[in-house]
Amino acid sequence: MLNATLLSIGDELLIGQTINTNVSWMAEKLNDIGVNVLHMITLADVENDILKQLDIALSESDIVLITGGLGPTSDDITLATLCKYFQSELVWNQQVMDNIDQIFALRKRMITEETRNLAFVPNDAIPIYNSQGTAPGTIFYKNGKMTASMPGVPYEMKAMMTETVLPFIQENFQLPFIVHSHILTAGVGETQIAGHLVDFEKALPEHLKLAYLPSLGKVRLRLTGKGDDYPTLQKLVEEKTEELATLIEPYIYGFNQDTLEGNIGKILLEKKLQLGLAESCTGGFISHAITAIPGASNYFKGGIIAYSNEIKRKVLGVNEETLSQKGAVSEACVEEMLEGALQVLEVDVAVAISGIAGPGGGTKEKPVGTVVIGVGNKDKKHIKTLTFTSDRTKNIQISGTVALVMLRKFLLTIL
Amino acid sequence: MLNATLLSIGDELLIGQTINTNVSWMAEKLNDIGVNVLHMITLADVENDILKQLDIALSESDIVLITGGLGPTSDDITLATLCKYFQSELVWNQQVMDNIDQIFALRKRMITEETRNLAFVPNDAIPIYNSQGTAPGTIFYKNGKMTASMPGVPYEMKAMMTETVLPFIQENFQLPFIVHSHILTAGVGETQIAGHLVDFEKALPEHLKLAYLPSLGKVRLRLTGKGDDYPTLQKLVEEKTEELATLIEPYIYGFNQDTLEGNIGKILLEKKLQLGLAESCTGGFISHAITAIPGASNYFKGGIIAYSNEIKRKVLGVNEETLSQKGAVSEACVEEMLEGALQVLEVDVAVAISGIAGPGGGTKEKPVGTVVIGVGNKDKKHIKTLTFTSDRTKNIQISGTVALVMLRKFLLTIL
Repeated sequence: MLNATLLSIGDELLIGQTINTNVSWMAEKLNDIGVNVLHMITLADVENDILKQLDIALSESDIVLITGGLGPTSDDITLATLCKYFQSELVWNQQVMDNIDQIFALRKRMITEETRNLAFVPNDAIPIYNSQGTAPGTIFYKNGKMTASMPGVPYEMKAMMTETVLPFIQENFQLPFIVHSHILTAGVGETQIAGHLVDFEKALPEHLKLAYLPSLGKVRLRLTGKGDDYPTLQKLVEEKTEELATLIEPYIYGFNQDTLEGNIGKILLEKKLQLGLAESCTGGFISHAITAIPGASNYFKGGIIAYSNEIKRKVLGVNEETLSQKGAVSEACVEEMLEGALQVLEVDVAVAISGIAGPGGGTKEKPVGTVVIGVGNKDKKHIKTLTFTSDRTKNIQISGTVALVMLRKFLLTIL
Repeated sequence: MLNATLLSIGDELLIGQTINTNVSWMAEKLNDIGVNVLHMITLADVENDILKQLDIALSESDIVLITGGLGPTSDDITLATLCKYFQSELVWNQQVMDNIDQIFALRKRMITEETRNLAFVPNDAIPIYNSQGTAPGTIFYKNGKMTASMPGVPYEMKAMMTETVLPFIQENFQLPFIVHSHILTAGVGETQIAGHLVDFEKALPEHLKLAYLPSLGKVRLRLTGKGDDYPTLQKLVEEKTEELATLIEPYIYGFNQDTLEGNIGKILLEKKLQLGLAESCTGGFISHAITAIPGASNYFKGGIIAYSNEIKRKVLGVNEETLSQKGAVSEACVEEMLEGALQVLEVDVAVAISGIAGPGGGTKEKPVGTVVIGVGNKDKKHIKTLTFTSDRTKNIQISGTVALVMLRKFLLTIL
């Protein structure tokens, strides 16, 4: 088994200002290709300590991945320290400078002397192209062990890992075969799903493992197989995925890289339907999720963020009486918002949502967390009242996710 | 300076299934009372490795805080390993058992033999009462150094830290004072800010440190002072914060716990202005950011997500000719969207935005990343064309952030 040590360099991590999401992302990707993470170590931008930890890491692991301390400012000392450790010299690299030039030209900014320094890279290392920013990464590959240094900015690190570091590991190290399969569910809890899978889990062979990965309103199931014979392993994981899928079919919205929003997009495209939204309590969350998908303009026309009652009335045509008698958080109001969205936006299908996200605005009958969700077209409308949590952020996210789950189910029932 | 090492024990962390939010929370609390976190180390439930890491931790730190591996199942070996290290014996503790009994009675569950084992605690340690669960924590205080072991479940750990561990540290160790100050900027890069602060940084006294913490479209500056005399230190950090603030005044949107959206909300409330939005390329991102702030309904009326040209025309009243001749991503179109938002939503101030988020839709003249942003009221409108990146997600986030920066500036110029 190949071992890796992850070193995270940065004071912002040690003082607790930043949550280290990098290492969990990296660990997941390393596991995906069959690399075991032995230690994750967070340390400060202090030369002696970086040298010491690097030495320990290289004594116990084959792969050392370092993030942080690569920017142009004076507290970024990772590269200089690596050069000291590996006895390398910094040499000018025109390709790296060209990339920096290009980025600055695009952003219409002047290049400072500090930024130009980023184009100096170690003479006996492989520079990692930074497709998302200026500071390049570095791979030292010596005595059969690899040390890679990347920026701490998550999207720059992720691009480098995907484009360069993971392929480098797969090319230069002997790895076992690992096959993953992800089954994506929404609108149901982990415990409820586990209840359906008791026998399935008991019958799983030793080299297959099932993991539950819950997030707000969603649970991702991961089936992982490890082995030396790839075709047999892949076939077994496929068979077990199908078996599992039949057991919890109503909760599944997709597999592997699918997203709920992307899956909805595909159905809308297939059925040639145009979608519109009327959001109150979610305030743009659903719209943002839908439009995060490339190509959303092919099926999403737009939405009305009807945060105030006035906009519910004037733009969506909700009746004054409905608002005064039933309130904005009522099935009657959401039905009229839905009808308004269908008409004003001239769309085939719409989602409407109104609720009390909190912390203020709750009453005895309608406490914080009460949300009314509607989906429908001109013929059919489904309206549901649900109660979520006392937390504003969670209420926005969970109710938005449930609205998308309802939309997907509705889309599957119509022509 | 008092040092701490945080050891996190658990496979779920090493395979990337769980993001380690415990250590950042703990580090923040430790910093608040003047303890420096030297290392954060994540390791597996393996006896030899726990012994080794504990030994290293106690050689370099005064305080070692361990989380994880304390449950009743067989893979939870932390306590047994600690006993081995400190040559302690487990003895029955009736108080701990009473707490377990109470919790099980409350949850109406039967106590298993494994759970009863949790009432055995080391004979020469101080048990930490668990107000949130069954497994007690443990403090070993030997040779002037402290080792505390807590569960990995965040709310159990947090309660133990607040109720027992932090007070224990304050009582038994000599601590310095620490003062933090955060200066929040947006719409400008780390390098450009650093360029304004070269002399300032050089002139900083040894016990004050400046850190740059960049994220998409924003840079947070943190000034940290450490010392023995609290009033002097606090005064110095305040003075230096003011000095720094004057050097980069145009880029600052707030301090410490402020958020850009929250700050905008405050200005809108103060000036008694109602805000509306017309979003195309950002597709709800700005609206979602604005409404994430509790109480947003006091100043935010709503928005139109005009994703299709049809909605730009029909709902916002953009001219057919503007769209056909200048295109949807043009200053003319955004000006009309802005005017439309002001009128349709009947608001005092509006933001309009249209651009090419990508990956499709780019042309030679208007490549992916081209975004037009407008802010204004009935008297005054500012429209800007900007070019960002080739990445859809980043374009949405950065352009949304820049729109908020422009909105804030505009709000400060009007009555």
